[in-house]
Amino acid sequence: MKARVTVTLKNGVLDPQGKAIEGALKSFGLEGIDSVRQGKVFDIEIATQDRSRAEALLKQACEKLLANMVVENYTVEVLG
Amino acid sequence: MKARVTVTLKNGVLDPQGKAIEGALKSFGLEGIDSVRQGKVFDIEIATQDRSRAEALLKQACEKLLANMVVENYTVEVLG
Repeated sequence: MKARVTVTLKNGVLDPQGKAIEGALKSFGLEGIDSVRQGKVFDIEIATQDRSRAEALLKQACEKLLANMVVENYTVEVLG
Repeated sequence: MKARVTVTLKNGVLDPQGKAIEGALKSFGLEGIDSVRQGKVFDIEIATQDRSRAEALLKQACEKLLANMVVENYTVEVLG
């Protein structure tokens, strides 16, 4: 099965990288960008056809390694 | 308007960071992870209510800065 995990910073957590990108876009003359926040995405292939097993495995992967639960949120989408 | 831009490596482009994450997950004892590829996600707020203008702006942002069109693909989702 294929899945996509998206990890984003929690609201209120400073994102200097996003701010830098925002500044760079403005300096390129792109008007109308209000804010940018950067996150990470992981495209994962899993050797099971069992959706609930895949979801459990991905939850573990996020909490052990992919996301820092103190400052980040994650979402898991199993694409089938 | 809010939008999400996702930038991923094209097929066939080596992803050493993804490989490292895959190895780390295996070493944590998570069985059944076949492959991991890492990408980036940008949550962007745009100062317009015009969806087609927002899409045009984001396309420009991707091609100028957010994605390296030689090795990366991007998708734009305007969330409204």
